[in-house]
Amino acid sequence: MTKLFVVGTGPGDAELVAPKARAAIKASTDLVAYGLYLDLLGDVCDGKVHHDLPLGEEINRARLALDLAAARKTTALVSSGDIGIYAMATLVFELLDRQLEGQETHPEWLDVEIDVIPGISAMQAGASRVGALLGHDFCTVSLSDLLTPWETIEQRIHCAGKGDFVISFYNPVSKKRDWQLNAARDILLQFRPASTPVLLGRQLTREDESITITTLGELDAKDVDMFTLVSVGNSESRHIVNGTKEWVYTPRGYKKKLSN
Amino acid sequence: MTKLFVVGTGPGDAELVAPKARAAIKASTDLVAYGLYLDLLGDVCDGKVHHDLPLGEEINRARLALDLAAARKTTALVSSGDIGIYAMATLVFELLDRQLEGQETHPEWLDVEIDVIPGISAMQAGASRVGALLGHDFCTVSLSDLLTPWETIEQRIHCAGKGDFVISFYNPVSKKRDWQLNAARDILLQFRPASTPVLLGRQLTREDESITITTLGELDAKDVDMFTLVSVGNSESRHIVNGTKEWVYTPRGYKKKLSN
Repeated sequence: MTKLFVVGTGPGDAELVAPKARAAIKASTDLVAYGLYLDLLGDVCDGKVHHDLPLGEEINRARLALDLAAARKTTALVSSGDIGIYAMATLVFELLDRQLEGQETHPEWLDVEIDVIPGISAMQAGASRVGALLGHDFCTVSLSDLLTPWETIEQRIHCAGKGDFVISFYNPVSKKRDWQLNAARDILLQFRPASTPVLLGRQLTREDESITITTLGELDAKDVDMFTLVSVGNSESRHIVNGTKEWVYTPRGYKKKLSN
Repeated sequence: MTKLFVVGTGPGDAELVAPKARAAIKASTDLVAYGLYLDLLGDVCDGKVHHDLPLGEEINRARLALDLAAARKTTALVSSGDIGIYAMATLVFELLDRQLEGQETHPEWLDVEIDVIPGISAMQAGASRVGALLGHDFCTVSLSDLLTPWETIEQRIHCAGKGDFVISFYNPVSKKRDWQLNAARDILLQFRPASTPVLLGRQLTREDESITITTLGELDAKDVDMFTLVSVGNSESRHIVNGTKEWVYTPRGYKKKLSN
């Protein structure tokens, strides 16, 4: 059998790693992942052959995982969060697609049995740490314009604003990109008030977690780095303060009444 | 201490329940949940006082959970999926908010320590079972018009279509609602081709799971019930067939090339 597990390990807290993800890693002889992700998992990675590749080598990481599995090494391709959300899973299927279309020369990939195991994504970890920010319709938008033109992203933010979705921005800034988040904020300010609650969640559920609740009007890219999730409430989201504890939640609907 | 755990237990597969969720249930003396969710969890629920309320009694379920915790019974309010996504978590904070605003008469609720534990949502389970449908920007839309007027929902679907988001419909139909899903389909057909892949995932990751890959043109509410997740790809999503195995994935971007 040739087997590839495609595994998401959640936001960071080992207690949020699904048993199924842990079992897949345990069953594998070879792991393809950033070292950092594996450090968070602990003992289960001991004794495995660990294949690392520099950041930015995403497609080669997916190729390597398929190659290893095709060579009959049970392999786990691992990422933090949900590997199906802005992550490696889609690259595996993009490569299979290319092989099926005759654009690759790896028919052996087609024999690999693939099992995708989802994980808890950053937006979910962030929402849970401050209450229930994702209580009603929401969307995610990646601000990376590496593979999607900025005009498309801009249009999408416009639609998300007009549709009054709660919005989580993935890849909000990078070393080379610093202006997109403020541009996104300015678009959203056309649709919802400056007082709209915003979550900045950095290193969520990890030891050095920091959580800031701010507002759309105060949102500034200078307060955000590549380890930060930015989630913007909808027009009904509420920031409440109970003594020393703060919460943000988005009501289930728009009628503002507590019926069933 | 008065403690309330607000716990999501994932789509159904016991192997997808986070250890943190299981530990919270174990630490509780009282569970507030539908019986069905607890059956999936097995032994960990043994010996707990189980409080059930009929479907439709959501707000009373949240009240009961706060009341029990305030009475110093360590309590877990439990739902399947992610309890922060279209589920009970937001009702707990809505009640706290009302108390802080003086619209309730339960100051004891404000002493309850609340810990929200996220879970894997149906859209993630569905995407993973067919590949990587959530590989790029996506949104969720609830088709229930109980608390949100249909005009708002309609506008939101329009925005989701125009923004070319992958869309997961929650509450796609119910016994009393059967026409909204087809109306949603017709809106989306203005923006993306009839060949767009659509996932119908029923009872995802459970014993009686059924998964159907269809197209937006073929999507029909008659094939969907209240246990079904409906996820519609974006204009770039691909349905690929490798022998007896089918996959759906959404590429990372719009440039249609495999660069990093």
